[in-house]
Amino acid sequence: MTPPLAISMGDPAGIGPEVIAKAWARRETERLPPFVAVGDPRAIERVWRGPIARIDTPGEAAAIFDGALPVMAVTDAGDITPGHPDPAGAICALQSLEMAVGLTRSGAAAAVVTGPVAKAQLYAIGFTHPGQTEFVAERCGVAAENAVMMLAGPTLRVVPVTTHVPLAAVRDLLTIDLVVNKARAAARGLTRNFAIERPRLAFAGFNPHAGEAGALGREEIEILMPAIHALQADGIDAVGPFAADTMFHGRARGGYDVAICCYHDQALIPLKTLHFDEGVNMTLGLPIVRTSPDHGTAFDLAGTDRAEPGAMIAAIRLAAEAAAHRAEAAA
Amino acid sequence: MTPPLAISMGDPAGIGPEVIAKAWARRETERLPPFVAVGDPRAIERVWRGPIARIDTPGEAAAIFDGALPVMAVTDAGDITPGHPDPAGAICALQSLEMAVGLTRSGAAAAVVTGPVAKAQLYAIGFTHPGQTEFVAERCGVAAENAVMMLAGPTLRVVPVTTHVPLAAVRDLLTIDLVVNKARAAARGLTRNFAIERPRLAFAGFNPHAGEAGALGREEIEILMPAIHALQADGIDAVGPFAADTMFHGRARGGYDVAICCYHDQALIPLKTLHFDEGVNMTLGLPIVRTSPDHGTAFDLAGTDRAEPGAMIAAIRLAAEAAAHRAEAAA
Repeated sequence: MTPPLAISMGDPAGIGPEVIAKAWARRETERLPPFVAVGDPRAIERVWRGPIARIDTPGEAAAIFDGALPVMAVTDAGDITPGHPDPAGAICALQSLEMAVGLTRSGAAAAVVTGPVAKAQLYAIGFTHPGQTEFVAERCGVAAENAVMMLAGPTLRVVPVTTHVPLAAVRDLLTIDLVVNKARAAARGLTRNFAIERPRLAFAGFNPHAGEAGALGREEIEILMPAIHALQADGIDAVGPFAADTMFHGRARGGYDVAICCYHDQALIPLKTLHFDEGVNMTLGLPIVRTSPDHGTAFDLAGTDRAEPGAMIAAIRLAAEAAAHRAEAAA
Repeated sequence: MTPPLAISMGDPAGIGPEVIAKAWARRETERLPPFVAVGDPRAIERVWRGPIARIDTPGEAAAIFDGALPVMAVTDAGDITPGHPDPAGAICALQSLEMAVGLTRSGAAAAVVTGPVAKAQLYAIGFTHPGQTEFVAERCGVAAENAVMMLAGPTLRVVPVTTHVPLAAVRDLLTIDLVVNKARAAARGLTRNFAIERPRLAFAGFNPHAGEAGALGREEIEILMPAIHALQADGIDAVGPFAADTMFHGRARGGYDVAICCYHDQALIPLKTLHFDEGVNMTLGLPIVRTSPDHGTAFDLAGTDRAEPGAMIAAIRLAAEAAAHRAEAAA
């Protein structure tokens, strides 16, 4: 029997509880596998009128999933006013994350899907990781630099080699080693999570027109091409660097399994332009499967019943798919 | 009687002649206004079997446009082997451009649409401008820095504030003055060419998440916000800076008339991701209307009859639309 997925609710005052509940409500039409929400059940009750079943272990989820949304409770989140985060909610969000990751590490859950948290709130209660990704990596015993953020939508996967840093700092961070390590982890992750035997990696150039043979910048010649050659020597199907602006239209996307991009916006602009409501963030390089919807807490929407569950549904589906591939490979 | 558009053929060995001929072949279904191709008629004959009518002045185009593609001949382009550019072809391309611009400057043509040229070929025959845009600007008596490149597709218009420079050089080029000047020209251009009375300009941040209030870079605080405030003080509807990755999905695009972007790929990635086959380059800030299809000579495709005329058709349509708005405003 496949264990359920564990979904941490994220900040109880954000839209996490609502999109989890709405995803459960669409479990049949979307053919979603059983999952258990982890957090304060009252956060869901505040924004949703459907049936909830409190359970004590993930093993109970499958039997009741048809009739009610299974929830495993953590610490009481205090008052919970949608749209108004507070320290009690942040503590609850952190404990939800901790429990959902722990359940997945132990094998009691098949994968973890993390709901959106408010970083500023977490920092205020003493959270010292830059974000949930680094926290999950640490709990898995993986160095943060070996955890790779991949964003995925229905027709595009992207990996930004550098992420949340000023654009002017990217040039100095971009090294052959960094590109090779991220790309290697991306290739391994695609094989492991999606059973793509020999993933095709396409690299985006750093400069306009991929530098035009050095006329518009030398990062392609000095960093990207040596990195691509090193990967090719390892037997990885790596091609490029290509002009970034001509890599993401429909026909071009068919030519690769993942685009390796130099910086945040180069990866996220095409992904969110194409798949704004269904983008999934997946962490590669971990011993467990972890996904999250690629949106934030949206405090301005919380409690209005207007949050769309599309990205949460996509995150659940992608996590289930990856967990199934891993289970199959291990069998 | 509205004069026809003048279309320079571009390099005779590229796909320019073919896409012009194919655009003419679709004149009825696409409801295209009369135009005249300017260049060596043999370049079209080499790649297309339809009817051509050589004419001496644009005034003859309208009467024969229904039955044949009107062509005004310039210097003989030599041998013309599709896919194999040579100096005679480059000279012909330059003379085509010169004549098409001259016809438009004089009012004999309503607008100029420029076919794709090979810059390396032009440089080899002594062309000293970076590209056709700067050449057209000079012939119009406009300083190159006041000519603004706008890329347009059916659902998005973008203006890159900096264009063909190394990405690492953008930070130092980006000044309040430059942003204000480009944005002002963009606003004026939208009013003039598209009769948008008060264009809505949305600015893309330079850094990821538009810098997160300085945490991920200060260019938004030090450059973009002062520029936006200066524009607002001028009565221009300028908003932002916004996180670039969340500016280009469907709902977001409805909120502005043009996105002002900091660098080439920030503007061109969303445009070409969405509208690869129908992107039009329009130069704003000129006394004449000038557009071009946003693709190159594609020498690898030339002569194979596989070139798609979509972008040329879009360029013709946009030029005609802008010329009509200008004529109306002047009437």
